Amino acid sequence: MSEFRWPVRVYWEDTDAGGVVYHASYLRFLERARTEWLRAAGITQSTLAEQSGLVFVVSRMQLHFRAPARLDDALEITVKPLQARRASLELEQQILCQQTCLLTASVRAACVTADAFKPTPIPESILEKLHR
Amino acid sequence: MSEFRWPVRVYWEDTDAGGVVYHASYLRFLERARTEWLRAAGITQSTLAEQSGLVFVVSRMQLHFRAPARLDDALEITVKPLQARRASLELEQQILCQQTCLLTASVRAACVTADAFKPTPIPESILEKLHR
Amino acid sequence: MSEFRWPVRVYWEDTDAGGVVYHASYLRFLERARTEWLRAAGITQSTLAEQSGLVFVVSRMQLHFRAPARLDDALEITVKPLQARRASLELEQQILCQQTCLLTASVRAACVTADAFKPTPIPESILEKLHR
Amino acid sequence: MSEFRWPVRVYWEDTDAGGVVYHASYLRFLERARTEWLRAAGITQSTLAEQSGLVFVVSRMQLHFRAPARLDDALEITVKPLQARRASLELEQQILCQQTCLLTASVRAACVTADAFKPTPIPESILEKLHR
Repeated sequence: MSEFRWPVRVYWEDTDAGGVVYHASYLRFLERARTEWLRAAGITQSTLAEQSGLVFVVSRMQLHFRAPARLDDALEITVKPLQARRASLELEQQILCQQTCLLTASVRAACVTADAFKPTPIPESILEKLHR
Repeated sequence: MSEFRWPVRVYWEDTDAGGVVYHASYLRFLERARTEWLRAAGITQSTLAEQSGLVFVVSRMQLHFRAPARLDDALEITVKPLQARRASLELEQQILCQQTCLLTASVRAACVTADAFKPTPIPESILEKLHR
Repeated sequence: MSEFRWPVRVYWEDTDAGGVVYHASYLRFLERARTEWLRAAGITQSTLAEQSGLVFVVSRMQLHFRAPARLDDALEITVKPLQARRASLELEQQILCQQTCLLTASVRAACVTADAFKPTPIPESILEKLHR
Repeated sequence: MSEFRWPVRVYWEDTDAGGVVYHASYLRFLERARTEWLRAAGITQSTLAEQSGLVFVVSRMQLHFRAPARLDDALEITVKPLQARRASLELEQQILCQQTCLLTASVRAACVTADAFKPTPIPESILEKLHR
C-alpha cells in the first residue's frame, strides 16, 4: 500500500472571512482524496453501499493545522495507508501547498453497515484491492 | 397562510474570503427557514420521508442578492407561501438584517417521491396543515 | 466568447440525506466553473482582489433544477457568456451528467469594490481578456 | 470557567447520502458553540478582528465520532475550557443527542494575528472575560 496524491484547488466556497480556508473544509479535501484513493483501487463507494450494504465512516481523527491555505492555492492531498484492521483502516494524510505541509491528519476509517452504522469486518475482496 | 420568520446567526462557516457571506450559504439559510415553517405547521420532513415516502425539493429558484451579510450578523429569514399547486408550492422568501432586505427569493418546492424523485401530488393532509 | 466546460466529481460532501446532491451544492459547482473560466482567460480572482481591489459577485440568479445528481457522478459544468455590461456579466450555465442536463442557470455577476461591495465598471483589461 | 451548551438543529445541509450528518459538519457545530461561548463571555470575533487584529484559529483537534446524528435531530454542543495558555486555549467539546454522546473533541484554539496568522499572546482583557 503506497502513498496516493490528489490535487485540490481552493475556491471561494472553501474560504472564510479570515481570508483563509475554513478549518472544516480541509476535512472535505481529505475525504475527496480518500474517495479517489479507493476509486484508484477499484472501489466505488456508491457501488459498495448499494451492492454490499457497507460504508466507510471516519471514527477517529487527529488533526494538526500548521499553516493556512488561501483562495486559488493548488493543493495536494496525500493518503498513506498504515494498517488494515478487521473492521477499520488506519491512514495518514497530509495537505501540501508546493513544498509546505499545511496539515497532517491521522484517520481511522471504520467499515459499518449502511443501514444501522454497525461496525463490520472489511470484506476480503476490498482488502485485496487495497493491497494490490 | 401567513408569513413565517426564522432567526439565523452568521458564523465563520457561512462566510468567504471576500469578508461576506458566501452566496450559496444564503440558500442554506432559506432552506432552514422553510424547514422550520413546515415544522411549525406540524410537518417534519424526516417523518414525511419515512412514513409517506415523500420529499420536497427545490425545482425553481429566482434570487436577487441586494447586499451582503457579514460575520456575526443576526439575520431573519422569511417564508411567505403564495400558492399551493397540485404537486408544488410557490413561496416568497427574504433575508433581512435589521431593517435592510439583503436578498429576495422566489422558490418553487416540488413534492417528489423519496426513491425516484418523481413529481407527485401533495397529500391532502399536508395541504390542510399548511392552510391552518 | 465561446462556451467553457469544467468537470466536477460528486463527493459525499455534496450530497444530502435525500440521497442526491444538496441543492446549494450546485451553486458551488457553478462558481467553480466560473472561476476556472476566468482563470482560462488569464484572470485570477485573488490577484484581481489584491491588485485592483475588485471582486465579481453574483447579483441575480435564476435556477431550474431538472434532475438530481448522485454520489460519484461525473458532471460537466458549462459557462456561456451572453453579454458584458458596464458593471456586470450575464452568463448562462448548465450542469450536465452524461447527455442529461440536470440544471440550467442564468447568472448575473456584478463587478464590485472589494472593500465596500460598491458596483463599479469592469476594467477594460478584464473585458479584453474575456473577449479574446 | 464552567461548561457552556449551545443547541443545534440538524438540517438537510448538514447531512450526506449516507443518511446521517456529514463528518465535517460536526466541526461547524463545534465552531458555532465556541463562537457563542465567546459571545456569552462578551467577546465578538468580528470586533476582535477589527479592533485588535486578532483571530482564534483551531491548531489541533482530536475527534472521536461515536454515533451518527440524523436529519431533524436536536443536538446540544458543549464547550468546556480546560486551560488557557499564553497563546492558545485548550477546550473539550461534546456533541449530545438527548442522553447520548455522539462525538467528543479536544480542541486547541490558537490566538493569531488576523493578517499574517502569526501566533500571539491572548490579550489580558480577553483572558479576564473568559475567567469571569
